[in-house]
Amino acid sequence: MLHISRPRTVTTIVELRDVVRDWRRAGDLVALVPTMGGLHEGHLSLVRTARRRAKRVIASIFVNPTQFAEGEDFEKYPRDEVRDAELLANAGCDLIYAPTVSEIYPDGFATNISVKNITESLCGTHRPGHFDGVTTVVCKLLNQAQADYAVFGEKDWQQLVSIRQMVRDLDMPIRIASSPIVREADGLAMSSRNRYLSEKERKIAGKLNRALFASADHIAHGIDLERVLEACTKALLTAGFNEIDYIEARDSANLNLIHTLEHGKEARIFAAVRLGQTRLIDNVPIERTGRAG
Amino acid sequence: MLHISRPRTVTTIVELRDVVRDWRRAGDLVALVPTMGGLHEGHLSLVRTARRRAKRVIASIFVNPTQFAEGEDFEKYPRDEVRDAELLANAGCDLIYAPTVSEIYPDGFATNISVKNITESLCGTHRPGHFDGVTTVVCKLLNQAQADYAVFGEKDWQQLVSIRQMVRDLDMPIRIASSPIVREADGLAMSSRNRYLSEKERKIAGKLNRALFASADHIAHGIDLERVLEACTKALLTAGFNEIDYIEARDSANLNLIHTLEHGKEARIFAAVRLGQTRLIDNVPIERTGRAG
Repeated sequence: MLHISRPRTVTTIVELRDVVRDWRRAGDLVALVPTMGGLHEGHLSLVRTARRRAKRVIASIFVNPTQFAEGEDFEKYPRDEVRDAELLANAGCDLIYAPTVSEIYPDGFATNISVKNITESLCGTHRPGHFDGVTTVVCKLLNQAQADYAVFGEKDWQQLVSIRQMVRDLDMPIRIASSPIVREADGLAMSSRNRYLSEKERKIAGKLNRALFASADHIAHGIDLERVLEACTKALLTAGFNEIDYIEARDSANLNLIHTLEHGKEARIFAAVRLGQTRLIDNVPIERTGRAG
Repeated sequence: MLHISRPRTVTTIVELRDVVRDWRRAGDLVALVPTMGGLHEGHLSLVRTARRRAKRVIASIFVNPTQFAEGEDFEKYPRDEVRDAELLANAGCDLIYAPTVSEIYPDGFATNISVKNITESLCGTHRPGHFDGVTTVVCKLLNQAQADYAVFGEKDWQQLVSIRQMVRDLDMPIRIASSPIVREADGLAMSSRNRYLSEKERKIAGKLNRALFASADHIAHGIDLERVLEACTKALLTAGFNEIDYIEARDSANLNLIHTLEHGKEARIFAAVRLGQTRLIDNVPIERTGRAG
């Protein structure tokens, strides 16, 4: 089905709730896809996932200042509302919620939500305050929309796990769904930040996912995990990445560091690397084969 | 109207939500009164306030371990479920929600809600972690019950203001109502902790509210605020209180410390004092008279 008209855009909590209330009265399920705009195929797959679960889909577009650490790219983060609206229309989104910063954080705003453990490793170590910013704004967006579902991408795996933990811990009446990473032809995980890459950097960027998949494969085949990750780190630095924030294997559910594979537990390799001015993240599952120990 | 039968008691989130869902379907408004049990007339006035706003009233009884600081009275906090249920029945409560600690904090619980500024003075200074414990558990209870209203007492004024701030900041879809302090014949603010007092201490305890009301009156009549509070502190120590945690005049809305009365702003005197092993709190409005400056 091709949507020709752009979805309606609202900018206030009151308007958002009015629309959702009408849908609810009509008996429709509602799903929310929180985004920061700068949309790409990854976001659109979230909208499609939302669409499979609910008749009505809202995409929020809000570049949340509180989840950018000092010195990060808040100011230059890609903003293109017209293009975003067109993409959302074609993906089957019914409503765009694009609040201002003062609608989300009115004067005197003073509340913070933090999730322990899960947010204290990986990006949590490298981006102080980032996950508090994420969980606090997501709690707000979920309460504002009061949808039945919210959908998040698996590229930001640590974010996804933190949000699931918050929703469970705070007994929030919503179900969280996720959608797999969408990759470019060379396997690069789609990200709004990929557009920061120069042509030369873009070519190097494609090597990250291949190194991670190869490492996961080696580990799955029983090669020593620490040796594999060390070799992966070296290979990426040689390939032209400037800096490796981390390359680690962790339990997929609780993000505990692992040193060997355990039966019955899903594990993933998580990576964050720097390429020029750009920070890229990715994660891949370690899929145990019949031969693995 | 006299209720003869005891209200139904549920202990799980699932049962609670089932009951509320049925009420909602019948079109009834629902109000929640969160308590820690140890009920007295103050709690019952909250139930009556709830009753005026909503057809259905839930009282939760949960002695929340996370809001007791180390060395406080969590273990000996009064628990008397049979008496509490009788009192609630007579006050017009429809449902008691009495979850276990593991229902509220399952293994792996990791989320914390904190409210800045408002919680950083008064009891926040003297009870480390107390308000984080309060806001986190109240957020959970509100999400569990999904009521239209929640009612809190004005004796715990700082708690009330912190909860209002959290609900506003997180856009929680609930309205917060409050109910004035209920006092004994000698003016002592009712509290579950009053039963810790010996007969002798109980007599001394009644002097706290009178000292605060007198001080508020002096300030309202233009006497220097700092001098009045200093004299009040001395008088209470002389009267037999062991220790004064604080006696301060603050803006009622944002709890900012005040040094003089300002037109158009409501102010209160807040006090926390120790009497034997017992910690008592109270607060009174500073009601400007025609003569006040």
